[in-house]
Amino acid sequence: MQYPEPIAKLIDSYMKLPGIGEKSATRLAFYTLGMADDDVKDFSLALQAVKQDLHFCTICGNITEDDPCPICKDPTRDQSQIIVVERARDIMAMERMNEYHGLYHVLNGTISPSEGTGPMDINIPSLIDRLKQHPEVQEVIIATNASMDGETTAQYLAKLLKPAGIKVTRLAHGLSAGADIDYTDELTLFRAVQGRIEM
Amino acid sequence: MQYPEPIAKLIDSYMKLPGIGEKSATRLAFYTLGMADDDVKDFSLALQAVKQDLHFCTICGNITEDDPCPICKDPTRDQSQIIVVERARDIMAMERMNEYHGLYHVLNGTISPSEGTGPMDINIPSLIDRLKQHPEVQEVIIATNASMDGETTAQYLAKLLKPAGIKVTRLAHGLSAGADIDYTDELTLFRAVQGRIEM
Repeated sequence: MQYPEPIAKLIDSYMKLPGIGEKSATRLAFYTLGMADDDVKDFSLALQAVKQDLHFCTICGNITEDDPCPICKDPTRDQSQIIVVERARDIMAMERMNEYHGLYHVLNGTISPSEGTGPMDINIPSLIDRLKQHPEVQEVIIATNASMDGETTAQYLAKLLKPAGIKVTRLAHGLSAGADIDYTDELTLFRAVQGRIEM
Repeated sequence: MQYPEPIAKLIDSYMKLPGIGEKSATRLAFYTLGMADDDVKDFSLALQAVKQDLHFCTICGNITEDDPCPICKDPTRDQSQIIVVERARDIMAMERMNEYHGLYHVLNGTISPSEGTGPMDINIPSLIDRLKQHPEVQEVIIATNASMDGETTAQYLAKLLKPAGIKVTRLAHGLSAGADIDYTDELTLFRAVQGRIEM
């Protein structure tokens, strides 16, 4: 005996989400059956809306309802700095700091030799164009992840942009807030020592 | 800065699922953004269909597109046995055995003193009615979970049905297939010893 078709289809859909296997998908599908009608309707509409109402900002690549995005449109933001991130959600993390008031550029990926992604496959050409059109940009701050691919991408961007006379910086690597030295991995410790600053 | 509204709404919806907190919901929402349009559309439609096209079988409480469900409608099934389960999905598990050809009754819950659920809050009245209308039923096999509430419910049903002259049985408790004795908990071992059969 098979599951009724509507259940089977919903299980299939849940299984397309990352980290959700058949057992979890089945559990979620049956749970959905028991949810309030309105909650399931909202869920269904939210899924449609996220694909229909959201776009990439044509300037910075951020995810936005309006194009350009609110940050690119905001004249009070410092137009001389651009933070380069891998993903649009990284912008939200940066904004939560409440300490940075410049602009962003979303690469939407990294250069990844292991996955065969090169500089032309991510939003590097649009960054170059943007810098050409906006000579008021004085600093590009690279905020790719502290991973192998993030590192490769950062090195590539630095080599590309520095000859053009743009100041290229990157986020500091070191201990995270509240970190215990004896629970910190060697690479992080090594970078923390390398990047030590005078007190 | 907030997430764009469509993302925020989808995060809210994902958070209504069991075991999904804000971080996971955010990850899933952004993942959804990157999914193929068709997959998201299918997901959205599947959510609607599961609420619109599925009903409870008015005879046994199973989840079904047609009422009565395919099992209740099937004249080749043994009409003299009813397996009582907590949830409709338990029927699927039983059917996967391919060894049982009788009928089912879904309680849709358990008697649970801790959660304030009594016999009238689950499908026990409909089971009584069904047994009255169908004197051909000779055996009720109780297949509630091996939990405290499942046990309470099993005991209650046995007390209720046995005086009416119906044979009431329950699933055996003991070692699961492939179980290692030294990894088996004490209660399971105790039940396996209590339920030992002659070789």
